[in-house]
Amino acid sequence: MAPVDRLGQQLAFLREVEKLKSVYRSTPLADGSRKENSGEHSWTLALYALVLADQAGPDVDVAKAVRMLLIHDLVEIDVGDVPLHSQNGLAHGAADIVLAEAAAAKRIFGLLPPDLAQEMLETWHEFEDAQTPTARYAKSLDRVQPPVLNMLGDGGSWLEYDVTLEQIDTRIAPKVALTLPNVWQRVRAEIAQWFSAHGRI
Amino acid sequence: MAPVDRLGQQLAFLREVEKLKSVYRSTPLADGSRKENSGEHSWTLALYALVLADQAGPDVDVAKAVRMLLIHDLVEIDVGDVPLHSQNGLAHGAADIVLAEAAAAKRIFGLLPPDLAQEMLETWHEFEDAQTPTARYAKSLDRVQPPVLNMLGDGGSWLEYDVTLEQIDTRIAPKVALTLPNVWQRVRAEIAQWFSAHGRI
Repeated sequence: MAPVDRLGQQLAFLREVEKLKSVYRSTPLADGSRKENSGEHSWTLALYALVLADQAGPDVDVAKAVRMLLIHDLVEIDVGDVPLHSQNGLAHGAADIVLAEAAAAKRIFGLLPPDLAQEMLETWHEFEDAQTPTARYAKSLDRVQPPVLNMLGDGGSWLEYDVTLEQIDTRIAPKVALTLPNVWQRVRAEIAQWFSAHGRI
Repeated sequence: MAPVDRLGQQLAFLREVEKLKSVYRSTPLADGSRKENSGEHSWTLALYALVLADQAGPDVDVAKAVRMLLIHDLVEIDVGDVPLHSQNGLAHGAADIVLAEAAAAKRIFGLLPPDLAQEMLETWHEFEDAQTPTARYAKSLDRVQPPVLNMLGDGGSWLEYDVTLEQIDTRIAPKVALTLPNVWQRVRAEIAQWFSAHGRI
Protein backbone atom coordinates (compact mmCIF):
# COMPACT_ATOMS: atom_id res chain seq x y z
CA MET A 1 0.00 0.00 0.00
CA ALA A 2 2.12 2.89 -1.26
CA PRO A 3 1.01 6.12 0.42
CA VAL A 4 0.92 8.05 -2.86
CA ASP A 5 -1.67 6.06 -4.83
CA ARG A 6 -4.95 7.76 -5.69
CA LEU A 7 -7.14 6.09 -3.06
CA GLY A 8 -4.46 6.65 -0.44
CA GLN A 9 -4.49 10.37 -1.24
CA GLN A 10 -8.29 10.50 -1.06
CA LEU A 11 -8.31 8.81 2.34
CA ALA A 12 -5.46 11.02 3.61
CA PHE A 13 -7.56 14.10 2.80
CA LEU A 14 -10.63 12.59 4.48
CA ARG A 15 -8.56 11.96 7.61
CA GLU A 16 -7.26 15.53 7.56
CA VAL A 17 -10.73 17.13 7.40
CA GLU A 18 -11.62 15.51 10.75
CA LYS A 19 -9.50 18.24 12.39
CA LEU A 20 -12.01 20.96 11.47
CA LYS A 21 -14.32 19.57 14.17
CA SER A 22 -11.91 20.93 16.76
CA VAL A 23 -11.82 24.46 15.32
CA TYR A 24 -14.34 26.47 17.33
CA ARG A 25 -16.20 29.61 16.24
CA SER A 26 -17.50 32.50 18.32
CA THR A 27 -21.17 31.46 18.04
CA PRO A 28 -22.48 29.17 20.81
CA LEU A 29 -24.85 26.29 19.99
CA ALA A 30 -28.56 26.90 20.44
CA ASP A 31 -28.53 25.05 23.79
CA GLY A 32 -25.49 27.05 24.97
CA SER A 33 -23.57 23.86 25.80
CA ARG A 34 -20.45 24.85 23.84
CA LYS A 35 -19.24 26.94 20.89
CA GLU A 36 -20.08 25.82 17.36
CA ASN A 37 -17.24 24.25 15.39
CA SER A 38 -16.46 24.91 11.73
CA GLY A 39 -17.31 21.38 10.58
CA GLU A 40 -20.87 21.38 11.85
CA HIS A 41 -21.20 25.04 10.77
CA SER A 42 -20.35 23.94 7.20
CA TRP A 43 -22.99 21.20 7.41
CA THR A 44 -25.64 23.72 8.45
CA LEU A 45 -24.73 26.02 5.57
CA ALA A 46 -25.04 23.19 3.04
CA LEU A 47 -28.59 22.67 4.33
CA TYR A 48 -29.25 26.41 4.06
CA ALA A 49 -28.14 26.23 0.41
CA LEU A 50 -30.55 23.36 -0.32
CA VAL A 51 -33.53 24.70 1.63
CA LEU A 52 -33.29 28.31 0.42
CA ALA A 53 -32.59 27.38 -3.22
CA ASP A 54 -35.74 29.16 -4.40
CA GLN A 55 -34.27 32.40 -3.02
CA ALA A 56 -31.16 32.05 -5.20
CA GLY A 57 -30.98 33.91 -8.50
CA PRO A 58 -31.35 32.02 -11.81
CA ASP A 59 -27.57 31.98 -12.37
CA VAL A 60 -26.81 30.19 -9.11
CA ASP A 61 -25.63 26.56 -9.33
CA VAL A 62 -27.06 25.26 -6.05
CA ALA A 63 -25.20 21.93 -6.13
CA LYS A 64 -21.94 23.84 -6.56
CA ALA A 65 -22.88 26.20 -3.71
CA VAL A 66 -23.32 23.09 -1.54
CA ARG A 67 -19.85 21.83 -2.51
CA MET A 68 -18.41 25.30 -1.85
CA LEU A 69 -19.94 25.51 1.60
CA LEU A 70 -18.79 22.01 2.52
CA ILE A 71 -15.14 22.99 1.89
CA HIS A 72 -15.12 26.76 2.48
CA ASP A 73 -13.74 26.62 6.04
CA LEU A 74 -11.19 23.80 5.68
CA VAL A 75 -8.36 26.36 5.66
CA GLU A 76 -9.21 27.01 9.32
CA ILE A 77 -7.48 23.72 10.16
CA ASP A 78 -4.26 25.70 9.75
CA VAL A 79 -5.38 29.29 10.33
CA GLY A 80 -8.22 29.01 12.87
CA ASP A 81 -11.52 30.85 12.76
CA VAL A 82 -11.39 34.65 12.58
CA PRO A 83 -14.68 35.92 14.05
CA LEU A 84 -16.41 38.58 11.92
CA HIS A 85 -16.86 40.87 14.92
CA SER A 86 -13.42 40.35 16.52
CA GLN A 87 -10.95 43.26 16.77
CA ASN A 88 -13.80 45.66 16.16
CA GLY A 89 -14.53 43.97 12.82
CA LEU A 90 -11.04 44.58 11.42
CA ALA A 91 -9.46 41.10 11.72
CA HIS A 92 -11.77 39.39 9.23
CA GLY A 93 -10.35 39.69 5.71
CA ALA A 94 -7.03 41.19 6.88
CA ALA A 95 -4.23 40.79 4.32
CA ASP A 96 -2.04 38.46 6.39
CA ILE A 97 -4.98 36.15 7.07
CA VAL A 98 -5.94 36.07 3.39
CA LEU A 99 -2.38 34.98 2.56
CA ALA A 100 -2.28 32.36 5.31
CA GLU A 101 -5.62 30.94 4.18
CA ALA A 102 -4.43 30.66 0.56
CA ALA A 103 -1.35 28.73 1.74
CA ALA A 104 -3.56 26.48 3.86
CA ALA A 105 -5.84 25.79 0.89
CA LYS A 106 -2.82 24.78 -1.17
CA ARG A 107 -1.59 22.41 1.54
CA ILE A 108 -4.92 20.83 2.46
CA PHE A 109 -6.44 20.41 -1.02
CA GLY A 110 -2.95 19.38 -2.15
CA LEU A 111 -3.40 16.14 -0.19
CA LEU A 112 -5.88 15.04 -2.86
CA PRO A 113 -5.09 13.53 -6.29
CA PRO A 114 -4.21 16.39 -8.70
CA ASP A 115 -7.56 16.52 -10.55
CA LEU A 116 -9.60 16.70 -7.32
CA ALA A 117 -7.10 19.08 -5.73
CA GLN A 118 -7.38 21.51 -8.64
CA GLU A 119 -11.17 21.34 -8.72
CA MET A 120 -11.52 21.97 -4.99
CA LEU A 121 -8.89 24.71 -4.96
CA GLU A 122 -10.69 26.50 -7.80
CA THR A 123 -14.03 26.13 -6.03
CA TRP A 124 -12.51 27.50 -2.81
CA HIS A 125 -11.02 30.52 -4.62
CA GLU A 126 -14.32 31.15 -6.38
CA PHE A 127 -15.98 31.30 -2.96
CA GLU A 128 -13.31 33.60 -1.53
CA ASP A 129 -13.40 35.96 -4.54
CA ALA A 130 -17.20 36.24 -4.31
CA GLN A 131 -17.55 37.41 -7.90
CA THR A 132 -19.90 34.74 -9.30
CA PRO A 133 -23.62 34.45 -8.48
CA THR A 134 -22.98 31.01 -6.92
CA ALA A 135 -20.19 32.30 -4.68
CA ARG A 136 -22.29 35.30 -3.63
CA TYR A 137 -25.18 33.01 -2.74
CA ALA A 138 -22.87 30.81 -0.65
CA LYS A 139 -21.16 33.81 1.02
CA SER A 140 -24.51 35.36 1.91
CA LEU A 141 -25.69 32.16 3.60
CA ASP A 142 -22.44 32.17 5.57
CA ARG A 143 -23.44 35.63 6.86
CA VAL A 144 -27.06 34.77 7.65
CA GLN A 145 -26.70 31.60 9.73
CA PRO A 146 -24.62 33.04 12.62
CA PRO A 147 -27.23 35.73 13.49
CA VAL A 148 -29.99 33.09 13.30
CA LEU A 149 -28.00 30.89 15.69
CA ASN A 150 -27.17 33.80 18.02
CA MET A 151 -30.89 34.50 18.37
CA LEU A 152 -31.63 30.87 19.32
CA GLY A 153 -29.38 31.34 22.33
CA ASP A 154 -28.74 34.39 24.48
CA GLY A 155 -27.12 36.53 21.78
CA GLY A 156 -23.85 34.59 21.65
CA SER A 157 -21.08 36.38 19.79
CA TRP A 158 -23.02 39.66 19.84
CA LEU A 159 -22.63 39.77 23.62
CA GLU A 160 -19.01 38.60 23.53
CA TYR A 161 -18.01 41.38 21.11
CA ASP A 162 -20.62 43.92 22.28
CA VAL A 163 -22.00 44.19 18.76
CA THR A 164 -24.51 46.91 17.85
CA LEU A 165 -27.31 46.75 15.30
CA GLU A 166 -25.42 49.43 13.38
CA GLN A 167 -22.36 47.17 13.16
CA ILE A 168 -24.52 44.35 11.84
CA ASP A 169 -25.85 46.70 9.20
CA THR A 170 -22.29 47.69 8.28
CA ARG A 171 -20.61 44.28 8.39
CA ILE A 172 -23.37 41.97 7.16
CA ALA A 173 -26.26 43.77 5.54
CA PRO A 174 -24.91 45.39 2.33
CA LYS A 175 -23.92 42.26 0.38
CA VAL A 176 -26.51 39.91 1.86
CA ALA A 177 -29.34 42.36 1.18
CA LEU A 178 -28.37 42.45 -2.50
CA THR A 179 -28.02 38.67 -2.92
CA LEU A 180 -30.83 37.42 -0.67
CA PRO A 181 -33.21 40.39 -0.28
CA ASN A 182 -36.21 38.44 1.04
CA VAL A 183 -34.19 36.39 3.50
CA TRP A 184 -32.31 39.41 4.76
CA GLN A 185 -35.46 41.51 5.14
CA ARG A 186 -36.93 38.76 7.34
CA VAL A 187 -33.81 38.04 9.39
CA ARG A 188 -32.98 41.75 9.76
CA ALA A 189 -36.45 42.36 11.20
CA GLU A 190 -35.95 39.51 13.67
CA ILE A 191 -32.54 40.88 14.65
CA ALA A 192 -33.95 44.37 15.22
CA GLN A 193 -36.72 42.87 17.36
CA TRP A 194 -34.17 40.83 19.31
CA PHE A 195 -31.93 43.87 19.98
CA SER A 196 -34.96 45.85 21.07
CA ALA A 197 -36.30 43.08 23.34
CA HIS A 198 -32.85 42.75 24.95
CA GLY A 199 -32.48 46.49 25.54
CA ARG A 200 -29.60 46.87 23.12
CA ILE A 201 -31.23 49.64 21.05
CA MET B 1 -44.90 37.98 9.47
CA ALA B 2 -47.32 35.07 9.60
CA PRO B 3 -45.51 31.96 10.84
CA VAL B 4 -46.95 29.79 8.07
CA ASP B 5 -45.60 31.54 4.97
CA ARG B 6 -43.05 29.68 2.84
CA LEU B 7 -39.93 31.52 3.97
CA GLY B 8 -41.05 31.23 7.59
CA GLN B 9 -41.32 27.46 7.19
CA GLN B 10 -37.89 27.26 5.58
CA LEU B 11 -36.31 29.23 8.42
CA ALA B 12 -38.18 27.19 11.06
CA PHE B 13 -36.65 24.01 9.62
CA LEU B 14 -33.17 25.59 9.52
CA ARG B 15 -33.57 26.52 13.20
CA GLU B 16 -34.65 22.99 14.06
CA VAL B 17 -31.64 21.31 12.43
CA GLU B 18 -29.32 23.18 14.82
CA LYS B 19 -30.36 20.64 17.49
CA LEU B 20 -28.51 17.81 15.73
CA LYS B 21 -25.23 19.37 16.90
CA SER B 22 -26.12 18.28 20.43
CA VAL B 23 -26.80 14.64 19.49
CA TYR B 24 -23.60 12.75 20.25
CA ARG B 25 -22.41 9.50 18.67
CA SER B 26 -20.21 6.78 20.12
CA THR B 27 -17.12 7.71 18.07
CA PRO B 28 -14.71 10.18 19.69
CA LEU B 29 -13.08 12.94 17.63
CA ALA B 30 -9.56 12.29 16.33
CA ASP B 31 -8.07 14.41 19.15
CA GLY B 32 -10.14 12.59 21.78
CA SER B 33 -11.52 15.87 23.14
CA ARG B 34 -15.19 14.79 22.96
CA LYS B 35 -17.59 12.48 21.11
CA GLU B 36 -18.51 13.28 17.52
CA ASN B 37 -21.99 14.74 16.99
CA SER B 38 -24.37 13.79 14.20
CA GLY B 39 -24.24 17.21 12.50
CA GLU B 40 -20.48 17.23 11.94
CA HIS B 41 -20.64 13.48 11.14
CA SER B 42 -23.08 14.30 8.31
CA TRP B 43 -20.71 17.00 7.04
CA THR B 44 -17.83 14.52 6.91
CA LEU B 45 -19.94 12.01 4.98
CA ALA B 46 -20.91 14.61 2.39
CA LEU B 47 -17.18 15.17 1.82
CA TYR B 48 -16.65 11.39 1.57
CA ALA B 49 -19.34 11.29 -1.13
CA LEU B 50 -17.61 14.04 -3.14
CA VAL B 51 -14.04 12.82 -2.72
CA LEU B 52 -14.74 9.12 -3.37
CA ALA B 53 -17.08 9.75 -6.31
CA ASP B 54 -14.81 7.81 -8.69
CA GLN B 55 -15.40 4.74 -6.51
CA ALA B 56 -19.17 4.98 -7.00
CA GLY B 57 -20.85 2.85 -9.64
CA PRO B 58 -22.10 4.45 -12.89
CA ASP B 59 -25.71 4.52 -11.64
CA VAL B 60 -24.90 6.59 -8.55
CA ASP B 61 -26.12 10.20 -8.48
CA VAL B 62 -23.34 11.74 -6.38
CA ALA B 63 -25.09 15.09 -5.87
CA LYS B 64 -28.13 13.22 -4.56
CA ALA B 65 -25.92 11.09 -2.29
CA VAL B 66 -24.57 14.36 -0.84
CA ARG B 67 -28.12 15.60 -0.17
CA MET B 68 -29.02 12.24 1.37
CA LEU B 69 -26.05 12.27 3.71
CA LEU B 70 -26.71 15.87 4.76
CA ILE B 71 -30.20 14.92 6.00
CA HIS B 72 -29.87 11.21 6.85
CA ASP B 73 -29.43 11.67 10.61
CA LEU B 74 -31.89 14.51 11.25
CA VAL B 75 -34.34 12.01 12.78
CA GLU B 76 -31.87 11.66 15.65
CA ILE B 77 -33.06 15.05 16.92
CA ASP B 78 -36.07 13.09 18.23
CA VAL B 79 -34.73 9.54 18.53
CA GLY B 80 -31.05 9.99 19.39
CA ASP B 81 -28.15 8.07 17.90
CA VAL B 82 -28.25 4.27 18.12
CA PRO B 83 -24.63 3.06 17.97
CA LEU B 84 -24.04 0.20 15.52
CA HIS B 85 -22.19 -1.83 18.14
CA SER B 86 -24.49 -1.12 21.12
CA GLN B 87 -26.50 -3.92 22.73
CA ASN B 88 -24.22 -6.44 21.04
CA GLY B 89 -25.19 -5.07 17.62
CA LEU B 90 -28.91 -5.70 18.09
CA ALA B 91 -30.22 -2.17 18.81
CA HIS B 92 -29.37 -0.71 15.41
CA GLY B 93 -32.27 -1.27 12.99
CA ALA B 94 -34.62 -2.62 15.69
CA ALA B 95 -38.30 -2.38 14.71
CA ASP B 96 -39.32 0.15 17.39
CA ILE B 97 -36.46 2.45 16.40
CA VAL B 98 -37.34 2.22 12.71
CA LEU B 99 -40.89 3.30 13.57
CA ALA B 100 -39.74 6.13 15.82
CA GLU B 101 -37.36 7.39 13.13
CA ALA B 102 -40.10 7.39 10.49
CA ALA B 103 -42.31 9.47 12.81
CA ALA B 104 -39.41 11.84 13.45
CA ALA B 105 -38.81 12.24 9.71
CA LYS B 106 -42.47 13.14 9.23
CA ARG B 107 -42.34 15.75 12.00
CA ILE B 108 -39.00 17.33 11.12
CA PHE B 109 -39.29 17.44 7.31
CA GLY B 110 -42.93 18.45 7.85
CA LEU B 111 -41.68 21.81 9.11
CA LEU B 112 -40.76 22.63 5.49
CA PRO B 113 -43.10 23.88 2.73
CA PRO B 114 -44.95 20.84 1.25
CA ASP B 115 -42.84 20.49 -1.92
CA LEU B 116 -39.54 20.53 -0.03
CA ALA B 117 -40.96 18.35 2.73
CA GLN B 118 -42.01 15.68 0.25
CA GLU B 119 -38.70 15.77 -1.61
CA MET B 120 -36.63 15.44 1.56
CA LEU B 121 -38.89 12.76 3.04
CA GLU B 122 -38.59 10.72 -0.14
CA THR B 123 -34.81 11.16 -0.18
CA TRP B 124 -34.61 10.09 3.48
CA HIS B 125 -36.73 6.97 2.82
CA GLU B 126 -34.62 6.12 -0.22
CA PHE B 127 -31.55 6.22 2.03
CA GLU B 128 -33.19 4.10 4.72
CA ASP B 129 -34.48 1.50 2.24
CA ALA B 130 -31.00 1.15 0.68
CA GLN B 131 -32.36 -0.31 -2.55
CA THR B 132 -31.00 2.18 -5.11
CA PRO B 133 -27.33 2.46 -6.14
CA THR B 134 -27.24 6.03 -4.78
CA ALA B 135 -28.62 4.99 -1.38
CA ARG B 136 -26.22 2.05 -1.18
CA TYR B 137 -23.28 4.34 -1.95
CA ALA B 138 -24.40 6.76 0.79
CA LYS B 139 -25.07 3.94 3.30
CA SER B 140 -21.66 2.40 2.64
CA LEU B 141 -19.88 5.70 3.31
CA ASP B 142 -21.85 5.93 6.58
CA ARG B 143 -20.28 2.57 7.53
CA VAL B 144 -16.72 3.42 6.44
CA GLN B 145 -16.14 6.76 8.19
CA PRO B 146 -16.59 5.60 11.82
CA PRO B 147 -13.81 2.95 11.58
CA VAL B 148 -11.52 5.50 9.91
CA LEU B 149 -12.21 7.94 12.75
CA ASN B 150 -11.79 5.25 15.43
CA MET B 151 -8.32 4.51 14.07
CA LEU B 152 -7.31 8.18 14.25
CA GLY B 153 -7.86 8.02 17.99
CA ASP B 154 -7.37 5.17 20.43
CA GLY B 155 -10.04 2.85 18.98
CA GLY B 156 -13.01 4.84 20.24
CA SER B 157 -16.29 2.98 20.06
CA TRP B 158 -14.48 -0.36 19.48
CA LEU B 159 -13.07 -0.15 22.99
CA GLU B 160 -16.32 1.10 24.50
CA TYR B 161 -18.29 -1.85 23.08
CA ASP B 162 -15.39 -4.34 23.10
CA VAL B 163 -15.80 -4.95 19.36
CA THR B 164 -13.95 -7.78 17.63
CA LEU B 165 -12.68 -7.88 14.06
CA GLU B 166 -15.19 -10.69 13.47
CA GLN B 167 -18.04 -8.40 14.53
CA ILE B 168 -16.82 -5.72 12.12
CA ASP B 169 -16.83 -8.33 9.38
CA THR B 170 -20.39 -9.32 10.31
CA ARG B 171 -21.88 -5.88 10.92
CA ILE B 172 -20.07 -3.71 8.36
CA ALA B 173 -18.24 -5.70 5.72
CA PRO B 174 -20.89 -7.53 3.67
CA LYS B 175 -22.76 -4.58 2.16
CA VAL B 176 -19.82 -2.18 2.05
CA ALA B 177 -17.59 -4.73 0.32
CA LEU B 178 -20.17 -5.10 -2.45
CA THR B 179 -20.75 -1.38 -2.96
CA LEU B 180 -17.24 0.00 -2.41
CA PRO B 181 -14.89 -2.96 -2.94
CA ASN B 182 -11.65 -0.98 -3.34
CA VAL B 183 -12.34 1.31 -0.42
CA TRP B 184 -13.35 -1.57 1.85
CA GLN B 185 -10.34 -3.67 0.88
CA ARG B 186 -8.08 -0.80 1.89
CA VAL B 187 -9.88 0.17 5.08
CA ARG B 188 -10.38 -3.48 6.11
CA ALA B 189 -6.61 -4.05 5.81
CA GLU B 190 -5.96 -0.98 7.98
CA ILE B 191 -8.49 -2.20 10.55
CA ALA B 192 -6.90 -5.67 10.68
CA GLN B 193 -3.50 -4.05 11.13
CA TRP B 194 -4.88 -1.81 13.88
CA PHE B 195 -6.48 -4.72 15.76
CA SER B 196 -3.24 -6.67 15.46
CA ALA B 197 -1.07 -3.75 16.61
CA HIS B 198 -3.36 -3.21 19.61
CA GLY B 199 -3.33 -6.87 20.62
CA ARG B 200 -7.01 -7.38 19.85
CA ILE B 201 -6.48 -10.37 17.51
